[in-house]
Amino acid sequence: MTAGKEEDQKGITVKKNENFSDWYTEVIIKSGFMDYSPVSGMIVFRPDAYFVWEEIYKAVDARFKKNGVQNTYFPLLIPERLLKKEEKHVEHFKAEVGWVTHGGDTKLEERLAIRPTSETLMYEVMSKWIRSWRDLPMKLNQWNNVVRWEFKHPTPFLRTREFLWNEGHSAYETEEEALRERDLILGIYESALKDLLALPCIVGRKTEQEKFAGGVASYSMEMLMPDGKAVQGPAWHFDGQNFAKAFEMSFLDKDGNKAYVWQSTYAIATRVLGVMVAMHGDDKGLVIPPSVSRIQIVIVPIYRNENRDLVMSKAKEMRETLGRKFRVHLDDRDDRSPGRKYNEWELKGVPIRLEIGERDISAGKVVAVRRDTAGKSDVPMAEIEGALKALLKNMNKDLYSKAQSFMKGMVSESSDYAEMKDILQKRMGVVCAPWCGSEDCENKMKDETGAKIINMSLGKKVRKGAKCVYCGKDARHMANFAKSY
Amino acid sequence: MTAGKEEDQKGITVKKNENFSDWYTEVIIKSGFMDYSPVSGMIVFRPDAYFVWEEIYKAVDARFKKNGVQNTYFPLLIPERLLKKEEKHVEHFKAEVGWVTHGGDTKLEERLAIRPTSETLMYEVMSKWIRSWRDLPMKLNQWNNVVRWEFKHPTPFLRTREFLWNEGHSAYETEEEALRERDLILGIYESALKDLLALPCIVGRKTEQEKFAGGVASYSMEMLMPDGKAVQGPAWHFDGQNFAKAFEMSFLDKDGNKAYVWQSTYAIATRVLGVMVAMHGDDKGLVIPPSVSRIQIVIVPIYRNENRDLVMSKAKEMRETLGRKFRVHLDDRDDRSPGRKYNEWELKGVPIRLEIGERDISAGKVVAVRRDTAGKSDVPMAEIEGALKALLKNMNKDLYSKAQSFMKGMVSESSDYAEMKDILQKRMGVVCAPWCGSEDCENKMKDETGAKIINMSLGKKVRKGAKCVYCGKDARHMANFAKSY
Repeated sequence: MTAGKEEDQKGITVKKNENFSDWYTEVIIKSGFMDYSPVSGMIVFRPDAYFVWEEIYKAVDARFKKNGVQNTYFPLLIPERLLKKEEKHVEHFKAEVGWVTHGGDTKLEERLAIRPTSETLMYEVMSKWIRSWRDLPMKLNQWNNVVRWEFKHPTPFLRTREFLWNEGHSAYETEEEALRERDLILGIYESALKDLLALPCIVGRKTEQEKFAGGVASYSMEMLMPDGKAVQGPAWHFDGQNFAKAFEMSFLDKDGNKAYVWQSTYAIATRVLGVMVAMHGDDKGLVIPPSVSRIQIVIVPIYRNENRDLVMSKAKEMRETLGRKFRVHLDDRDDRSPGRKYNEWELKGVPIRLEIGERDISAGKVVAVRRDTAGKSDVPMAEIEGALKALLKNMNKDLYSKAQSFMKGMVSESSDYAEMKDILQKRMGVVCAPWCGSEDCENKMKDETGAKIINMSLGKKVRKGAKCVYCGKDARHMANFAKSY
Repeated sequence: MTAGKEEDQKGITVKKNENFSDWYTEVIIKSGFMDYSPVSGMIVFRPDAYFVWEEIYKAVDARFKKNGVQNTYFPLLIPERLLKKEEKHVEHFKAEVGWVTHGGDTKLEERLAIRPTSETLMYEVMSKWIRSWRDLPMKLNQWNNVVRWEFKHPTPFLRTREFLWNEGHSAYETEEEALRERDLILGIYESALKDLLALPCIVGRKTEQEKFAGGVASYSMEMLMPDGKAVQGPAWHFDGQNFAKAFEMSFLDKDGNKAYVWQSTYAIATRVLGVMVAMHGDDKGLVIPPSVSRIQIVIVPIYRNENRDLVMSKAKEMRETLGRKFRVHLDDRDDRSPGRKYNEWELKGVPIRLEIGERDISAGKVVAVRRDTAGKSDVPMAEIEGALKALLKNMNKDLYSKAQSFMKGMVSESSDYAEMKDILQKRMGVVCAPWCGSEDCENKMKDETGAKIINMSLGKKVRKGAKCVYCGKDARHMANFAKSY
């Protein structure tokens, strides 16, 4: 399927709850949110999608900066020898690296990897900058593009061979300081998910098998898709001194002794756009939360030839005045009926539609329609600004509540393996169960249920005497099991 | 040379006017502005440098958006067959393409080029989006990274194998509309150069040989370096219908006839950071214009053990209050003398230093020192905010005036070839001379003088009866000759 022109579009032909996967593809293409590219597994972010990413970038970046993080830019390419310096890291990433072998017609002496992530390159360079405790903490970040040559079936935004993200890399003097960063960063990401994308998440620690390759511990924010599968969102990783030792990132501490830095890394990626689309969209198309919608309000004038000038001039005046406070678009096309315009803007997920005709003008009002609820309300012109502000705010809040209710209904607790398997098979979603912590149990359950441990909820304690749902030995963690993207 | 820690730095050891090239390298490394990377020809933008780029991005992007430009993101990689679709385009770029041949261990069926620029990929996709005049104008842009595998000696910022830029791509219904875009975009770039980087430029049209590969006409903003060589800055290219025909970007016009779009592209790249450093820096280090300096004001407290608390508390209070209006840093390190701190911040190019000691506090004042002029002034505490605002504003203005005077002194007019050669050899800079327009003359002059036609000034008319400085035939253009980076 390719992007069709408006003339060819017949709206969404698949119901979200009948065939989620086809619905997802149709909705992101037909709405003009993204498009495929001539390179398999790499997508085009059209303006509405890129705008969402820009809003995430702006909000998250401002909070990073407030916390002393400094932005940098490191090269796209990493020499093969560097990538190999941290053993577990290269082991994990080498299978999915895009390799550059030639510059023009010249064969390179050493292959260069397109960064799948920048630890190795950054730490090689940062090690030269860090010499004394005076240079710490060093909290660097970049907003860039990375390539991971996955061979699994690609899904736009959720699994693509190139994606955009931030990669934060901090180096601290002590382990305590490094660990203190965790809640700060996860808090920034959680706000972005909630306030901008209206998405709830489950925060927890990854198991040893699932943690970041080369790190000590990973903390992830897992989200749920409408089909009941989990998808990993932003994450914060504690690297301990693993990379520090591989890249000789040492410094002289306050007592004049040589010490290695303690490190962390963290990221939020464009994958979250896919979750946003999936969670909020409906059978009419996209539903974009107001805080990240490129167009927040579309004005659709309703007129005949006789009163076109009257209506259009009022509509233009509204565009002017409302445009100072909101992101407004006036659909002034004469060759489209209002009904057809409604369909188009619903497909694109614009949060609020304002309908204005001659009778509305006479009555000193406008009709406002919310995209998510289709709720109509008459808004007196005199109160329009406040009313729209409230509508937009409520829509963000309501989208979040709805997504949260969905998630609550999809998360359950079980200490019975048969029951857990049954839930994971029938309803999907997340089952939180006691686990002994052994990789053997983890692997067997994964094989038998198709679900993995997405993370272990923070703050959820194992009940006294609780036994592993699989082997019956003493449980050490409350693990969240789910099938995942 | 690698980045040294502060302890090892002895300041700049080369004079700018004695060995410009070595001075340039020393100043950008020792100040911590950038660093080399393990990949030859690719550099690391450290926080102070990336901050400058962020400020350019923010200002330019806001003005693009005001003019209806929408941001997008297209993939990093371009299939070889696409790159070949526009003949002159591939001819120019193929020698400097970084080629991806493998994904993991799998050899790709077709080589993929890391984008040297995105025309071919974007137009292939955009052609599907454009069907009727209703879809036009389509004004898209991306802020991204590109790779050009140049084999000439790399110079940080000025010639690197990867750089950051914006690439704007517009498609219009008519030629007139497309051409109207030129002055708007060049105006946005000119403001960015002037108001942010304090850099003047010479705007003009490129010759046929020097224009963008695949385009119809190119307009560039050329800047001058302290060594008298020119360097190309931002540019706007008129593509006519060349790419439109190669990529079948056609649409149905208002009369229902098939027509091809008229296109333009435009870009500003991180290269301008190099010119900023080169023009404003001095023998003490960088001088960063206040509008793009990550730290605008550094507070250096002057104290002895006995009055440390008193002075430091006043300094902290200043950091608080001034921090609400300016980007302020307090250098509270106890193990550095004020003099050493002065040197460090001068090396880094921070626009204003505030010195505060006990006597200043008693007198209700602070000493402000401008980085560019070293001018000291006593500023009463009561007026500090206004005074600093004025100082920062004046510094931007004065840096621009100084750069402009330099440029004026380096640009001359000549209609005598021997004189022109002499100037280009001795003083370098720019010589504006009448030219007949033939490639033959252009090439011969390039061979004989080492200078090329950087552009042909807009608005500078050929005097009646003027003859080509080389062949003596009727002149058609006033061409700007210069040696260039």
